[in-house]
Amino acid sequence: MFDPGELAEPIVQAPLAGGPSTPALAIAVCEAGGLGFLAAGYEQPDAVREEIEQVRAATERPFGVNLFVPAERPADPATVRAYLDELLPEAARQGAELAEPRFDDDGWEQKLEIVLEQRPAVVSFTFGCPPASAIDSLHERDIAAWVTVTTVEEAEQASQAGADALVVQGIEAGGHRGGFADSDGADGWGLLALLRVVSNMVATPLIAAGGIGDGAGVAAVLCAGASAAQVGTALMLSPEAATNDAQRQLLSQPIPTRLTRAFTGRTARGMVNRFLDEHSTAAPPAYPEIHHATSPLRAAARRHGDADAFNLWAGQAHTLARELPAAEIVRQLGAEAREVLRRLA
Amino acid sequence: MFDPGELAEPIVQAPLAGGPSTPALAIAVCEAGGLGFLAAGYEQPDAVREEIEQVRAATERPFGVNLFVPAERPADPATVRAYLDELLPEAARQGAELAEPRFDDDGWEQKLEIVLEQRPAVVSFTFGCPPASAIDSLHERDIAAWVTVTTVEEAEQASQAGADALVVQGIEAGGHRGGFADSDGADGWGLLALLRVVSNMVATPLIAAGGIGDGAGVAAVLCAGASAAQVGTALMLSPEAATNDAQRQLLSQPIPTRLTRAFTGRTARGMVNRFLDEHSTAAPPAYPEIHHATSPLRAAARRHGDADAFNLWAGQAHTLARELPAAEIVRQLGAEAREVLRRLA
Repeated sequence: MFDPGELAEPIVQAPLAGGPSTPALAIAVCEAGGLGFLAAGYEQPDAVREEIEQVRAATERPFGVNLFVPAERPADPATVRAYLDELLPEAARQGAELAEPRFDDDGWEQKLEIVLEQRPAVVSFTFGCPPASAIDSLHERDIAAWVTVTTVEEAEQASQAGADALVVQGIEAGGHRGGFADSDGADGWGLLALLRVVSNMVATPLIAAGGIGDGAGVAAVLCAGASAAQVGTALMLSPEAATNDAQRQLLSQPIPTRLTRAFTGRTARGMVNRFLDEHSTAAPPAYPEIHHATSPLRAAARRHGDADAFNLWAGQAHTLARELPAAEIVRQLGAEAREVLRRLA
Repeated sequence: MFDPGELAEPIVQAPLAGGPSTPALAIAVCEAGGLGFLAAGYEQPDAVREEIEQVRAATERPFGVNLFVPAERPADPATVRAYLDELLPEAARQGAELAEPRFDDDGWEQKLEIVLEQRPAVVSFTFGCPPASAIDSLHERDIAAWVTVTTVEEAEQASQAGADALVVQGIEAGGHRGGFADSDGADGWGLLALLRVVSNMVATPLIAAGGIGDGAGVAAVLCAGASAAQVGTALMLSPEAATNDAQRQLLSQPIPTRLTRAFTGRTARGMVNRFLDEHSTAAPPAYPEIHHATSPLRAAARRHGDADAFNLWAGQAHTLARELPAAEIVRQLGAEAREVLRRLA
């Protein structure tokens, strides 16, 4: 079973579903000694299989695949409809239509089949704790099961369910909060405190995620008990990432980030723009319905380069992101972390 | 001028205004090699002078005094009144009256005079950036001026104003958020990301505050660029702290914390109890008016040991607090931090 302590560099690539994720990024991170990741979320099952095959063909190193655990029940249709009515002028502005606010499971069963067949070193889960049967199936195939947690309770539950590592996500993280329930995040744990408290409660290895943008941040989470640091935003300016051009130009600017359900119906951190500012208050918890409904609107805004109208997911430390090849970023973060630890010891 | 890098232990005591702060706690922290602090906030000016004299008589080590920077203008009286009307049954339940919701400056000028006269090594400021004239006066007397910041903008402003160190407070911290403006904290920075981004913007030494409860946490913030770790909750179970008995019994239990204005009209983190749960939604930003008005109610609840009706300020990592003499806690945190750094280097 894959052990994150064995990585040449203590860096795990965040899956970055729905945008920057590419096989090229995962391959580059793996080849540099980190753990590359593919995002199965939002993808067609066949595309997931193809991407896994692409990565496997290009590197012999271990890599991971991230799956979304489906929501238990649909949101109230009237609540969803009321919010989508508010967004009609946004759609018109982009010359786009809103899509049907459908409830689905993101192809859960099919994608689980694919990872069981393809056997990446790690399968990580976001938005919930997978059932024991899924974890058992992974273990039978020597695949490590990692679970994303944002609270102490989630950490205990995932650990008891047999998770091989916990991706401990602090409030600093960009993109969706990956915990089990969708809270608005106002009471979210900071990464450092969460790592220390979880570290004292469970023996499971921890991967630290949220606002880690440089080697000093990596060294900090290693001190706080993590086996490795998961970085996402820190890789978004690499040429291997499929980061939207409009967002690339904004990432290094000191634009504040905020938690919002405005784009997808689930709490996520993005750089503040007009859409986030105007719709966060009204947006209800209704994922994946609102994600699907706003998808054409956001795609149109991306095509138009209108960075005020689509989600600019980014962690709090986004100004630290470097415009370098992904492998170089991984190596720099590792080298800086070692240097900081040497200097302070 | 005092340099936090010269401390024998990289530990600064949080001022802990309005409860756990005592001269005995400050003395114990100083004697163990950390930087003890007195909280001038809420105190009568004469009491501040006496406490400084007490600490000076007991230790030759440097220590600090914390002042509250006054709010610029009173809150809307009708808003304050509406909230206090909601609290009338709470007061009745404690057999107490609400006090007048008065606006004041916490004796700002007098307290500033006292610290200029008494010359502690450090004067730290909470709730705002002091005017340049105040910082200049401190510098003329060789007193270091530290400013509490919660955002990158505040850090830049305080640094430009001549602060000798920034107390960088993350969202994890217990008690009041110490930044300049009172935001609800929903978009607050996690400590680690804030330290790294601020570290890259200003050359001023940084003191890290928020959710640091053990030596691994101390090591982490040193890696992230801090000169020392400020700890408050971590000292609240020491015999030297004047922590309320009812809270002492709760601190080691895994009770969640939340940000709230319910008790004081200013955002602060406390352990969730009935009062916090029932009144947070309605509580407006109106500090110090609501602080003063609820003061007798909270005092009565403390006397009754009714932990569901007064503020249980605590940081997110409160379960890590140790029931040991303060000096021992300071030494343990320092020793653990060195051990973690040695092991990882």
